[in-house]
Order: sequence, then C-alpha cells, then structure tokens
Amino acid sequence: MINKTMFELGSTQSIIRELHEQKCEVDLTIGNPSAPTPSALTEALIELAKEGDHSYTQDMGDATVRESVCRSLKNRFGVEMTKELVYMTCGAASALTISLKAIVNAGDEVIIFAPYFPEYTVYVEGVGATARIMPAKEDFSLNLEALRASISSKTKAVIVNSPNNPSGVVYSEEEIASLAAILRSYGAFLISDEPYREIAYEKPVPYPAKFYQNTLTCYSYSKSLSLPGERIGYIALSPDMPNASEVMCAIKGAGRTLGYICAPALFQKAIAKCEDVMPFIDLYKKNRDTLYDALSAMGYEAVRPDGAFYLMVKSLEEDSVAFAKNAARIGLLVVPTDDFGAKGYIRIAYCVSHEDILKSIPLFQKLYDAYSSRSEKINLDKLRLRLR
Amino acid sequence: MINKTMFELGSTQSIIRELHEQKCEVDLTIGNPSAPTPSALTEALIELAKEGDHSYTQDMGDATVRESVCRSLKNRFGVEMTKELVYMTCGAASALTISLKAIVNAGDEVIIFAPYFPEYTVYVEGVGATARIMPAKEDFSLNLEALRASISSKTKAVIVNSPNNPSGVVYSEEEIASLAAILRSYGAFLISDEPYREIAYEKPVPYPAKFYQNTLTCYSYSKSLSLPGERIGYIALSPDMPNASEVMCAIKGAGRTLGYICAPALFQKAIAKCEDVMPFIDLYKKNRDTLYDALSAMGYEAVRPDGAFYLMVKSLEEDSVAFAKNAARIGLLVVPTDDFGAKGYIRIAYCVSHEDILKSIPLFQKLYDAYSSRSEKINLDKLRLRLR
Repeated sequence: MINKTMFELGSTQSIIRELHEQKCEVDLTIGNPSAPTPSALTEALIELAKEGDHSYTQDMGDATVRESVCRSLKNRFGVEMTKELVYMTCGAASALTISLKAIVNAGDEVIIFAPYFPEYTVYVEGVGATARIMPAKEDFSLNLEALRASISSKTKAVIVNSPNNPSGVVYSEEEIASLAAILRSYGAFLISDEPYREIAYEKPVPYPAKFYQNTLTCYSYSKSLSLPGERIGYIALSPDMPNASEVMCAIKGAGRTLGYICAPALFQKAIAKCEDVMPFIDLYKKNRDTLYDALSAMGYEAVRPDGAFYLMVKSLEEDSVAFAKNAARIGLLVVPTDDFGAKGYIRIAYCVSHEDILKSIPLFQKLYDAYSSRSEKINLDKLRLRLR
Repeated sequence: MINKTMFELGSTQSIIRELHEQKCEVDLTIGNPSAPTPSALTEALIELAKEGDHSYTQDMGDATVRESVCRSLKNRFGVEMTKELVYMTCGAASALTISLKAIVNAGDEVIIFAPYFPEYTVYVEGVGATARIMPAKEDFSLNLEALRASISSKTKAVIVNSPNNPSGVVYSEEEIASLAAILRSYGAFLISDEPYREIAYEKPVPYPAKFYQNTLTCYSYSKSLSLPGERIGYIALSPDMPNASEVMCAIKGAGRTLGYICAPALFQKAIAKCEDVMPFIDLYKKNRDTLYDALSAMGYEAVRPDGAFYLMVKSLEEDSVAFAKNAARIGLLVVPTDDFGAKGYIRIAYCVSHEDILKSIPLFQKLYDAYSSRSEKINLDKLRLRLR
C-alpha cells in the first residue's frame, strides 16, 4: 500500500553501509572531512547563538547572506553576480533535487558522466526523468565523444562534478569549453555539482558558469568548511542565463514542493561571516601524496587525483565487490565503485587522519601480496582462508 | 522549457507576501514566534559549537537524539517508543513531504480538513496525489460528516493539524477517536501535523498516534522552541503501526529522493539537550485573551482559540481579501483565509509582542467603525477613500 519505489530505495542496504558495519582497523569509506571546522566558523556560531535570532529567512535565503555569496563568487571567479541569482539550500543534495525539480518535465533525459556520485540517478529518477550514463574513460576525463552521440532534443540537463567524486579528477578549461559548445547547440542546462571546488591541489578548477550561460551551480559548504551534517549550500545561476528570473521562480516553486522552507538560518549567517575562509587542504594533499605514491610503488594502478579527497584504484580481481570484501577481511574498509558507474575499481576516501593513512599502507601491501601469490586461476576460497 | 508547475508555484505572489510588503503599524501576518529561544537551547548551541562535531548523522538522525525524542514522547503521552520509529527531519514541512512521498502512489487521494495550512495542497499535489478538502464547520471542529461521505478505497491518507493553523482550535479526544474509527475501516494513514502541540492554553491536546495505529506524527521545534528558521523536527510512527518497519524504509527512500541527507546535526543534538523544555506560552495566552476579548467587545465574530497563536475573525464584508486590504490601508496587516480553504475570514497571528497587540486594538476599532458607518449597500470606493 505504501510507495514501492521509496520502500525499495530505503531498504536496499548499500555496499558502503554493509562494509561500514564490519570491524576494521582503517575505515576509508566515508567522505566525512577530518579537517577541523575553521575557528572563524566556530566563533561565528557562538556569536550568532548568543544573538538568538532563529526566525525564518526568505525562502531564497537571507538577503545579506546571498550578497555575501555573490561577493565570494566575484572574488574567486570574477563573475558579476546579484543576490537574485542565488538560492540558499540545505547542502548540495537539496540544491540538486531542487534544480532538477525546477527544470525537468516527465520524459526528459538527464546525462551523467561516469564515474559519478550514486545518488545522482536517485535524484534524476525522483523527478520522473531518465538518467543516461556516459561511460567512464580510462583517465576519467569527460567523455565528450559519448556525449555527442547521446545528446538530443530530449536532453534537459547534463550533470558535471569536478573535482570528481569518486575519481578526484578536475576537468580542464578545454574540456569545460568543449562541453559548453556541445550543450549550446541544444540549449540544455548544465548542472554543476561543486562541493569539492575548493579542494584542488595543483590544477585550477574552472567555474563552469563562466563558460556556459545555462549553468546552475550547486554548492555545499560540507567539505570546504567541514560541515557535512549541517546542510548548508546554494544554487547560483549563471549571470549570463537569459531566462534567469523564470528559472529562479521555478526553483522557488520546487523548493516549496519538496518541503524546504529555508536553509538553516544560523548556518546561513555563519557561512556569510566566513566569506573568504578557504579550507585547510594540506592534510588531504599530504594524504593523497603518501597514499598514491605508496600504492603505485606496490603495483596498484590508479589515476592520480587532482582534487576532492578520493582515489580510485583498480581492483586486483574483476569483481571489485569481492575485492572490497577481501580488503575488509584484513581490516581495511574501501568502497567498490560499481554503484558509481565504473566497475572494477575501489574508491578510497583519504579525508581521514594521516595516521590512518599510514596504518592503511601495510594493509594494502598485505592485500596486494595475497593477490600476487595466488595461482593463475583465482582460488577465492583459499584466498579468503589466507586473508582471515 | 522549464517545469511550468514549479514556475507557477514560485511566481505566484501570495497575498501574505503582497500585504507584508506594505508599510504598516502592526504586522499580524506571520507565524514567527516572538517568545525568545529558551536559554537552555542557547547554552546547548554554544556548547556544541565549541565541541565542533559537524559530521553527518545517520539518515534517520543521530541515534541518541532519537532516543531522547522517544523519552520525551513517553513522558508527555505515555507511548512506548523505540528509536527505530523516529526519523529526524528539517522541520514539519519536510516531515510532511517525506511522509507523503513514502506512502502515496500516483492517483491516490489525500483528505484535508478546512481550514488548513495552504502548503498542504502543494505537498499533496507535489507527490502526484489529489487533495480533497472537507469544508470548514462554523466552530472549526472536525467535519466528520464530510469525511464519512468522502473517504473511499482511494484515500491513502488524512491530514489533521491540532492545535490548528489558522483557527487555533484543538480537536477533542472524542473527535480524534471518531476520526480513528472511520479511518480504521479503510486502513488509511493519518498524518498528524503537530507543530503547535505544545502551545495550548486550557484544553488538553490528544496525541492522535495513541488513538490510531496507522499514524505518522509530524513534529517541528519551530514554534515550541522559537526556532522556525533552523528547520528541525521529526516523523514518529505510532508504536502500534503493524508495518512500521516497511513504512520507515519508505520514509528513508523518500528522504533520499527529495535530497535530505540528514537533519541539521547541531540542532538535532541541541534539541536533545532540551528534552523537557516546554515553551513559554504565557505571552501568547495573554495576547489571545486581550485580543479575543477586545475584538468580541467591539462586535467582531470569532471562535476563541484553544491553542497555536492564531485567531480567525469573520470579515466585515463578504470579500475577505478586500477586507484585509482595507485593514492594511490603516496600517494593520492580517491575512485573508481564502487560501486556507475558508472564505470570509481573516487570520491574525498573535505571536507578536503584547505591545503590538495593544497597538492593534484601536486600529481594529477604526476598521470596525468604518464598516459600521457605511450605508446598507457597500460603497467600497468611498470606504477606501475614508480609510486612506
């Protein structure tokens, strides 16, 4: 009698959770940033709590907060924004669902590049659209050939995510410009999911809204300010979007329909007080370097990540779920990327302490050795016995 | 090209907003509680901010927070709850949209009693169901006759809201028991929207989940702890619900689909530290008494509210929108209740300071006098001239 689709979505135990429930020495499954929340944010929260104003803000968010977002986007990317282009949200997830609900009609298609954050398909199907997945390339760069072959008048939007979860790849300016050129001839929207925008080590992260007028930027402070549980982010429309005011009306309507009254007021005001605070990414960079170098030296194959705090490593057997389970048996929790649209890999979330990275290295070595010493024909039972 | 329904929802200027933008002496349009946030909550926020843990909670909410909700429900209503029956939400609005998304299938009907909070129809239609409105009774009690005539196998759920927004009426135990008896023979769900549960002056507020097993209680701390902008509440399933674990799965699936990762973590933990804090309702009671007595003495017709902080008053002309606009012309902002499913009334939100209530009284008198001195046939143009 209840809604079967929702029941199935809620009752499927994800492989992440299944693995996460096991005992382990090092848990590298979850994107919970270990960098502490900046002290400026803590001070802002305390000050605001003392002021004690917890009243509703406008549905779009407090006007001075949206002005602060505009200033920070101008400082970062040189875009001339106005507060009418910004809608504060409960994190990037709600920015995505509200954006999709605002622009999608039943029967539309939404294109997603693999590898991708698995909830994208849930969000796309949740608004009655069809998700079309562009297969992953070996180097995890944007698969523009597949896009050219797949885009059509049915394509309402394309989702990009750079720096990418799970690959850590940052798409180049050339890739974003080529993507924009393809989208332009179809007028499709670009939904740019940017929670990792501030976490890039060397390569600059292009701001897609500068390249393509029909861009909805979905942002979250979860990773940059280490606030994932607090649910604060925004949707920013490109200042060049021709029908921006209509799209913003639809966003307001979608926010109402999905039950978002306003983004949490205290956190709206707190992030505005931290306008120019940049994340402390040295820890993540150190973890990436240590881990990537160690795994490569052992013989693992991986694409060196430019940003975010994830690393994708080729599974040592075809079935990456079995591989991740074997890793779990020796106390090392990692996520197989089958649900991310790329089979044969595991995702390592290296946003943990450096100690945990150091602890993980002998475990990765043990895992590698177990696989290298096996006979030509994999005898999984024996392997499992040995790994126990 | 965008979603037309969302565009229309977002672009309709509501009468509340239209009125709210006018200059005024007293604004009685908005349900923003004027009672200060309890000091225990402020202290909890400061303590938690200093601890600095802003990580994700479980999708259902932090386990110890949900245990705290169970204890408080047991203390208040004697119900034996377990944390598996509680799902923390971003306020009551998201509790409602998630509940509806979880249980409703396309083509289902959802019954709503007038007068009602206008967003109910947005939420019901947003999940593809049809809203069926039961007309308001003169005393705003539950229209069970209309329900008996309208309920059918198509009825997936019935929404009740007591203390009621906009009438302030509290439904009696007898009414809730009779409602339960009707629902029982159809197996329909009861969605009990209870943001005003703690704001009742004399009459006890029955807890519907005790009367009917298929009840989803939607709660918010917005009004009880004066936190409307912070978006924190929960869904609690009746401990007697036979398929509670399936319904909870569907709730988790619906939360995912709508983009809710978890309820704001800091506020989850803060409300758990204020488990037994009850709202300071003396101010609202004083406002109700002063206002109800004054308006009745002037000759206005109104049903004396038992709770919440709203009062419905009969419009002095048939067109309550015109009446509210005339009130606005003399500096008094109130909301016509046409959008609440009851024409011919205005809603007064008396959750303001007592000074504002005292300031409003001569304005209500001026408005009454203007209407009493008019000729038999309403000459609105003249009236407007006089009111200017």
